[in-house]
Amino acid sequence: MEINRYIDHTLLKRDAITKEVDNLIDEALKYNFRTVCIHPIWIKHAKSRLKGTDTNITAVIGFPYGTQTTESKIFEAKDAIKKGADELDFVSCVSRVHERKTSYLKKELKKIRKATKSKTIKLILETGLLTKEEIEYISKLAISAKWDFIKTSTGIETTGATLPNVKLMVELAGNKIKVKAAGGVKTLKDAQSYIDAGVKRIGTSNGVAIMEGKPASAAKSDY
Amino acid sequence: MEINRYIDHTLLKRDAITKEVDNLIDEALKYNFRTVCIHPIWIKHAKSRLKGTDTNITAVIGFPYGTQTTESKIFEAKDAIKKGADELDFVSCVSRVHERKTSYLKKELKKIRKATKSKTIKLILETGLLTKEEIEYISKLAISAKWDFIKTSTGIETTGATLPNVKLMVELAGNKIKVKAAGGVKTLKDAQSYIDAGVKRIGTSNGVAIMEGKPASAAKSDY
Repeated sequence: MEINRYIDHTLLKRDAITKEVDNLIDEALKYNFRTVCIHPIWIKHAKSRLKGTDTNITAVIGFPYGTQTTESKIFEAKDAIKKGADELDFVSCVSRVHERKTSYLKKELKKIRKATKSKTIKLILETGLLTKEEIEYISKLAISAKWDFIKTSTGIETTGATLPNVKLMVELAGNKIKVKAAGGVKTLKDAQSYIDAGVKRIGTSNGVAIMEGKPASAAKSDY
Repeated sequence: MEINRYIDHTLLKRDAITKEVDNLIDEALKYNFRTVCIHPIWIKHAKSRLKGTDTNITAVIGFPYGTQTTESKIFEAKDAIKKGADELDFVSCVSRVHERKTSYLKKELKKIRKATKSKTIKLILETGLLTKEEIEYISKLAISAKWDFIKTSTGIETTGATLPNVKLMVELAGNKIKVKAAGGVKTLKDAQSYIDAGVKRIGTSNGVAIMEGKPASAAKSDY
């Protein structure tokens, strides 16, 4: 698979304006990226421009903290699907992971899987806030609940994707779930190292810099 | 009014555990704070401990980016009320303010006001991302839609509440809406200066330090 088809071209700056979203979409069409990854308020607009193209829409749900109730996450997801989202990246509830609230987490993952039917759903673990043991714990729950992807990070914490965490997740995943690396992926070299490690998707706001082989100094700092 | 009754005692750390929430509640009961300000996942637990006391529950909605759809914000609010929230602090959509999407914003504010009935609702403007003109623009829309409060900040941006912005908001508010200062309120002196300027509520994670007259060096850095 060509590298562009690994990329969720991402714009999650909270105060982006239409021109920036349109620019993201223009770039996604130019490079034929896999999806654009955006906030729910932009889905309708993006859908009107991407219908009939090979670029899908990823919407983030419960972003960036994941501290909403299960019911709210499900409503937000269904609303996003209704408005045109093809894939959904949910933020996991780190508090509940820290406390090993297994029954709560199992129920949440199962209910969301059921509510989103055949859509591609990714669970953002926020590995930068987790121990290795916690990454294993929540990854296994996501696998049991038949989610499509485990994803490293939102991009808002000090630590985003790292090669050791990505390798750990790929190993846990086997062929039962896929892995998305996100948060601080800045260059073609970064992207290639994650793909070599086995990830099936990359989330980055530096898709263009990656395609053009630009250095890290040219990268955007966000997401 | 005593200073404790101005305070929304706040814990919005995304990965807080039950012990930290219980500690917040203990402190709120000890000092008889006006509300505890928490994420939706904690409402049920807080309600079980605060029922029948003088400390109410503020839940944050669309926190911290405000980039959810109107429908999702309304669902999240209704769900929070169902679970026991008494007051709701909504994050305004900064993108729509930047672009002066008046019809969108009017509709959102009106629908939320209607859906939340007689609950106290506060609109978090996120003044740190706005110009003076934008603060005036969104404040006037909140007044027109009969919201209860305009609130300065989420606490996640570099700039939280500032005295010039608070004074501007109080002036715009007149007796038509109340003002809540939040984000970086660390000491009794900070709190007193905002109260003297005319705010009716203060959001801070430093409620205890304020009550005990502790110096800024003893303050928590978050929210």
